[in-house]
Amino acid sequence: MNGKLKYEGKGKRLFESDVPGQLIQQFKDDATAFDGVKRERIAGKGELNCAISSFMFERLQEAGVRSHFIRREGPREMRVWELEMFPVEIVIRNIAAGSICKRLGLTEGLRLARPLSELFYKSDALHDPMIAVEHAELFGWATADEIATMRMLALRVNEVLAGLLSGVGIQLVDFKLEFGRHPDGAIVLGDEITPDGCRLWDAATGRKLDKDVFRRDLGGLSEAYHEVATRLGISVGASA
Amino acid sequence: MNGKLKYEGKGKRLFESDVPGQLIQQFKDDATAFDGVKRERIAGKGELNCAISSFMFERLQEAGVRSHFIRREGPREMRVWELEMFPVEIVIRNIAAGSICKRLGLTEGLRLARPLSELFYKSDALHDPMIAVEHAELFGWATADEIATMRMLALRVNEVLAGLLSGVGIQLVDFKLEFGRHPDGAIVLGDEITPDGCRLWDAATGRKLDKDVFRRDLGGLSEAYHEVATRLGISVGASA
Repeated sequence: MNGKLKYEGKGKRLFESDVPGQLIQQFKDDATAFDGVKRERIAGKGELNCAISSFMFERLQEAGVRSHFIRREGPREMRVWELEMFPVEIVIRNIAAGSICKRLGLTEGLRLARPLSELFYKSDALHDPMIAVEHAELFGWATADEIATMRMLALRVNEVLAGLLSGVGIQLVDFKLEFGRHPDGAIVLGDEITPDGCRLWDAATGRKLDKDVFRRDLGGLSEAYHEVATRLGISVGASA
Repeated sequence: MNGKLKYEGKGKRLFESDVPGQLIQQFKDDATAFDGVKRERIAGKGELNCAISSFMFERLQEAGVRSHFIRREGPREMRVWELEMFPVEIVIRNIAAGSICKRLGLTEGLRLARPLSELFYKSDALHDPMIAVEHAELFGWATADEIATMRMLALRVNEVLAGLLSGVGIQLVDFKLEFGRHPDGAIVLGDEITPDGCRLWDAATGRKLDKDVFRRDLGGLSEAYHEVATRLGISVGASA
């Protein structure tokens, strides 16, 4: 990368690009879980995630959902718009799994009567605590209107992705999205859409095809992500 | 008590009364904390809480806030309407203290820019987890409209109580309310308003006059509650 590193997270780096207002988002091979306590380098993961994320953003744009995505720029690089990110995450759940099961005493696998949208405050130090719109408003993280927009977009993303995945025999259990403000003022989808931030279950067998494979030591993460890509008809390089 | 016991909680018992649709709410002397792990019998606490709660419900009714309260019926008994309770709690916070400090990394004593209303699901087994209106709607605990009504009433209660307490040198830091449906269909305040469910700090010194005295072993709980009652001009029996 030629541009200056602007940000490095657990799974991605953001570099300045040759065009003001545009960044290069590079996907790392690192897998982390439990706030970074569990960590491993998995060859090919960055490229798989870049391929899957680019594919998802393209399908969403065709469906009218705007994002920071401009184009795939390299094996593990995407060109994106620089957004002013909101410090919140929206989680959409179709089926109960993960933290909500313990929190509300639900059985993993319970199909919810309709998609549930949850809000979290992005803070590694606080372990991304769940919040409500009242906290976001009081502490200036986002207004109620901004959150309503994000939630509406997130539910639209859910429709598009759930349909896309069900066509290839995958259940979209839940996923996390982040949003930001585009230079033109619109609230658009940012970050990534990969099996790192989604729960994906094989519709026939319930086999996990997402980061829970890594979290729970259920086998090869790279193989699981590769299967998601292959089913979606995404070609990935030999290195993956 | 002559009536049949209908419900027994950590701090109260509800008995059937001689009038259908009305109950007798009896305050116990038990103090409990940390989901009942810490427990002690404190002579006079039931009577103090009954006196304080009756006083508060009376002042609220004068201010136009309806509750289940009909009248004080004995030293530790109130006559109340039987409500169909919602399985949620509303917490109003004026100053950061307790669980929110750890959850969101706030310093105890931080004055919030405006009152914050938080929602919790009543479940001893789950330790009353925080929820958002979306959870309440999805799981059928209360509709968005019902929660909006409870929040509006809770903020009105906050205005009345904060004013009342500030007049006697006490800061209303936070408090918990429960609501239910009155036989006539209206959503009204239920449960109790006592230093068990409020944080009350001496305005001049910051000294705690609430259940944190018990939770944190800060001295005599009965003396603290007695001081709250005395400052409010509530006469309590010699047994307290």
